[in-house]
Amino acid sequence: MRILGVDPGNALTGYGVIEREGASRYVAAGTIRPHAAARGPTRLAAIYDNLIKLIDQYSPAVISLERSFVALNIQSAFTLGEARAMAMLAAAHRGLELFEYTPTDVKLSVAGYGRADKRQVKQMVRRTLKLDPAIALADDASDALAIALCHLYRERIPRPEPRVRKAWPTARKIAAACGS
Amino acid sequence: MRILGVDPGNALTGYGVIEREGASRYVAAGTIRPHAAARGPTRLAAIYDNLIKLIDQYSPAVISLERSFVALNIQSAFTLGEARAMAMLAAAHRGLELFEYTPTDVKLSVAGYGRADKRQVKQMVRRTLKLDPAIALADDASDALAIALCHLYRERIPRPEPRVRKAWPTARKIAAACGS
Repeated sequence: MRILGVDPGNALTGYGVIEREGASRYVAAGTIRPHAAARGPTRLAAIYDNLIKLIDQYSPAVISLERSFVALNIQSAFTLGEARAMAMLAAAHRGLELFEYTPTDVKLSVAGYGRADKRQVKQMVRRTLKLDPAIALADDASDALAIALCHLYRERIPRPEPRVRKAWPTARKIAAACGS
Repeated sequence: MRILGVDPGNALTGYGVIEREGASRYVAAGTIRPHAAARGPTRLAAIYDNLIKLIDQYSPAVISLERSFVALNIQSAFTLGEARAMAMLAAAHRGLELFEYTPTDVKLSVAGYGRADKRQVKQMVRRTLKLDPAIALADDASDALAIALCHLYRERIPRPEPRVRKAWPTARKIAAACGS
């Protein structure tokens, strides 16, 4: 099973694809960087269109998305909501399940510590995925891989009280129910 | 020229299409109401897919969108940003120009008073568009028509210091510049 992790941001959107085959394996990671002049609609289209391309290229089964509940201010929450919506829409349009995790969930799963910093998370991502040192990893790409790993851990470890947060029912199931 | 006004909301999204041919003319209006069980990705897909259908059916030249800069709280700003992003993406995907106006802009243009209430706005929308009393008009649909009218007024009245807020450059132009 392949997992596409997405770290939506106001400027850049990180993505990371991992695969579970026994151990977890790195497939791809990078950053969606809309043209500097692209604002509003064009910026969002760059995010959505590239996510759709990634889904069609790597065929993930699910999208794992970071959902922060905090923002610097209302304006930044609006912009972040817009970017996040692109991942949600791409999931719905390709019939993928979407799971959402808070930044603390992600850090706890990957680095064992909910307040781990970016450097610690990147170190653990590299170690866990046995990443070749030759592979450069931007911060947003590393965060996206961590978000994908978070879903993999939460799915793999059954708990008496399940900690998997299945945020939304299968998009495809609901789409059918809606007749859309 | 046809204008599609969109009033994105957390639950419902209003739309209204008007046409300028000498006077302004009502074409259509209504509410996009995702299935009650639809949440997250499916809710957003219902908004986006229906906006695309409306654009293909009515061929507007521009989208006029309400951009509020306030929200009850951060969470509501996230959700509202998600809904608004659907109109922005639909504009980019269909190569339409997008204009954004604040609620005060809209009320001022349509009712001549920036703090007009919903009833007053609806009354002025009905009067301006000479709406047949037989046509029922939901609040969100009336708001969307007001947003469309706001763009029409701002475009029609040339001012020394133009008050048309062309929020984003033509999506199509930028898309070309991005090579996407």
